[in-house]
Amino acid sequence: MASSYGYPFKQQHCLSISQFSRPDIETLLSLGEHYLDLDVQKSPDRTILAGKTLVNLFFENSTRTQKSFEIAGRRLGADVINMSVAGSSVKKGETLLDTAATLNAMNPDILVVRHNASGAPALLAQKLSGSVVNAGDGMHEHPTQALLDALTLRRVFGEDLGGLRIAICGDITHSRVARSNVQLLNMLGCEVRLVGPPTLIPSDADRWGVDVFHDMETGLEGCDVVMMLRLQLERMSGAFVPSKREYFHFYGLDRAKLTYAKDGAKVMHPGPMNRGVEISSDVADDPHLSLITQQVESGVAIRMGILHALSDARDDIA
Amino acid sequence: MASSYGYPFKQQHCLSISQFSRPDIETLLSLGEHYLDLDVQKSPDRTILAGKTLVNLFFENSTRTQKSFEIAGRRLGADVINMSVAGSSVKKGETLLDTAATLNAMNPDILVVRHNASGAPALLAQKLSGSVVNAGDGMHEHPTQALLDALTLRRVFGEDLGGLRIAICGDITHSRVARSNVQLLNMLGCEVRLVGPPTLIPSDADRWGVDVFHDMETGLEGCDVVMMLRLQLERMSGAFVPSKREYFHFYGLDRAKLTYAKDGAKVMHPGPMNRGVEISSDVADDPHLSLITQQVESGVAIRMGILHALSDARDDIA
Amino acid sequence: MASSYGYPFKQQHCLSISQFSRPDIETLLSLGEHYLDLDVQKSPDRTILAGKTLVNLFFENSTRTQKSFEIAGRRLGADVINMSVAGSSVKKGETLLDTAATLNAMNPDILVVRHNASGAPALLAQKLSGSVVNAGDGMHEHPTQALLDALTLRRVFGEDLGGLRIAICGDITHSRVARSNVQLLNMLGCEVRLVGPPTLIPSDADRWGVDVFHDMETGLEGCDVVMMLRLQLERMSGAFVPSKREYFHFYGLDRAKLTYAKDGAKVMHPGPMNRGVEISSDVADDPHLSLITQQVESGVAIRMGILHALSDARDDIA
Repeated sequence: MASSYGYPFKQQHCLSISQFSRPDIETLLSLGEHYLDLDVQKSPDRTILAGKTLVNLFFENSTRTQKSFEIAGRRLGADVINMSVAGSSVKKGETLLDTAATLNAMNPDILVVRHNASGAPALLAQKLSGSVVNAGDGMHEHPTQALLDALTLRRVFGEDLGGLRIAICGDITHSRVARSNVQLLNMLGCEVRLVGPPTLIPSDADRWGVDVFHDMETGLEGCDVVMMLRLQLERMSGAFVPSKREYFHFYGLDRAKLTYAKDGAKVMHPGPMNRGVEISSDVADDPHLSLITQQVESGVAIRMGILHALSDARDDIA
Repeated sequence: MASSYGYPFKQQHCLSISQFSRPDIETLLSLGEHYLDLDVQKSPDRTILAGKTLVNLFFENSTRTQKSFEIAGRRLGADVINMSVAGSSVKKGETLLDTAATLNAMNPDILVVRHNASGAPALLAQKLSGSVVNAGDGMHEHPTQALLDALTLRRVFGEDLGGLRIAICGDITHSRVARSNVQLLNMLGCEVRLVGPPTLIPSDADRWGVDVFHDMETGLEGCDVVMMLRLQLERMSGAFVPSKREYFHFYGLDRAKLTYAKDGAKVMHPGPMNRGVEISSDVADDPHLSLITQQVESGVAIRMGILHALSDARDDIA
Repeated sequence: MASSYGYPFKQQHCLSISQFSRPDIETLLSLGEHYLDLDVQKSPDRTILAGKTLVNLFFENSTRTQKSFEIAGRRLGADVINMSVAGSSVKKGETLLDTAATLNAMNPDILVVRHNASGAPALLAQKLSGSVVNAGDGMHEHPTQALLDALTLRRVFGEDLGGLRIAICGDITHSRVARSNVQLLNMLGCEVRLVGPPTLIPSDADRWGVDVFHDMETGLEGCDVVMMLRLQLERMSGAFVPSKREYFHFYGLDRAKLTYAKDGAKVMHPGPMNRGVEISSDVADDPHLSLITQQVESGVAIRMGILHALSDARDDIA
């Protein structure tokens, strides 16, 4: 391992940004950069995960993330087994443990799991002999999304992201993407801001090491990057947001609001987008402004890097 | 490429029969014949698509076609990623473009797509860097079905299909299979007839280069081949067809109606069949009459040929 | 074949326990033991099924069994094609034959099939040129489950299971697992008992070569193994069982009832469990009592053994 990338990465799982040291993160981002090279991705010499089994277990639908892991695993030579479980059949924690026992007996080397309960991947990690990757758990974390966002930023701003001012905008309360990104960007020395209506900012955000704003004009001031979040459709009526139209008026990112940010500021969105709700199409589709396509490209690459690093770390202790 | 099959096939996509020249078609059919050999199909030396990613994106259900492409891709060594999308989540053209951008960022070499909107594959081909194969779009085209039908006919009638009289019968209006077959069979020099009730024959059929008939007796006269189409169940009541029973009486193919065709005429059907509606079981299951099983066999083979040719053409320009 | 495992295994299919001779069973169990070794399972040298196509056709949902076969096939190097068919689209026997014809034309080497109609795999075996494995058909048989149970018992009790007293408890009437296990355990010389309420014991059980009991206390007396069956939720109200609570009181396995069995008796369950209905969690989760996790481990291994043996047998006649 030391020979491959100079730092002894020893993590067995990828559950939360908070578990990683700064050198761990640098290792993962360097490996991700390596795999951005398509010729490397598609090399017919796939030995990294040859003979290994990756189970891609999704308790929530997410074609994009599940397929990203599937492609990453296959390009490294793994056997990828997709399992999509209807939420209804696995409601009780008890049953999650039975699922864990069943999975463990099939002996996957890596389990990628998305679950609507915060902490489900960590629980599975305790019960399984293989590595567990958190592909999103409830409103808790989505660490591989944060890592792919950081990898995307590196492609634009270089290896050192320190000092960048980044606004994360929209529904922070329900967003695991925001929670993982705040931690990672803080670790990398960015100045992170949260922007959104009071109903969508968590009450403990003052302890996150961020500045909080309730309007786009002051929130975006001087920002190098504006990271928009998806507004869940089920929150658009009633308690949280008066209407789509009003939400877009105050918090949707269009060219007018983008002028509040630094000249040349970049726009990100984890997808899938609600066009005309949290972001306008002319911003989302402008290749000079938007990094959205690069985020997806980075998604396959960073996941190849994560799978690679976890597999090496586990082989080292075996 | 020239060394492999003698003609410089340069098509990047397979979207419509109309895009192909006669030599293109001959190249695809020759490759399809090559892959009819099972020992060739299952050779452990799979280098043609090794390290390449085939995404099998179906917006409409079709186990048969999707699995045929999956098997074809795997037998050539590709990583095959299946994506089945519930029609509801992708209603707007806007979202189709987002899907395209997401897919493109995952960098598939080949995208096989079925969509209920005519022209969706062509739109995706403009946006993607890889090759696109149309696996059926709305009421527009289904070119790989027409190619597999032609390959099936070659196995019975030899390489030259010129002069064969072929009746395509049933619901022509809603059939992409009919549209693709008319074009291809015309190109190959066949004499093509359409047979069906006036409600199910498109009003512009007189410009398709075919003869139109509204009764089976005169329509089938002298035909070498009778190609039946599937009647969609949702059209069986009301506007288009009075009842299943009446439809079968006038247009369902049974032994009695088959006597109107040439002695020894062959029967085809793209499947899945509605037995007792457009075709009777004793005709469908008679190995002396029916080519239906050979059509499925030809499906895997022609798709291997198409994937092979597209991949080579793309490598040539890379 | 003789060179590999000393006995000329000549079975083309795996449809029912009753088709196998005692030496056939010994061959399968020996191969299963071989594949319990994870290093063997994950050897990068996968030649046994290289270039072969395994179609995993499930007309009933069963993530556990389908994924077990998928992992087994992939670890042997096969192309595994999953097909899950909504029960509704394949109601008529007629259509099952069309499905068979379609599948056959795609030329799978092995078809693994689960179907809610007893006899469906046997019918498919007549129509297909490849090998068919019954992964559960109606209330008829589930032979690979019985084989994995026997493999699990071997790991505890050694190669000779003769003389073991084994109680199969619960809903015998609707259980294909019970039917396959009774046959196999009888063949291996075990003393088999059925325990359950009269409403859930089939009326012809007296001809199965077993003893029948209607209470757990006398039924479990002297038993080395207690094999619990899943109670289908739809049978818990009304005709068969008064209530979950009452069922558990009389027939659910807890520590108290387990004392009726031999000291050190082992507990089995084919999964997924209804905890608190047919089995209590403290019994199911006690590693000194429960073999449930080993059963899943044995599932992948025995299926690798079965696929291996069928493939060799077919190659011998080719």
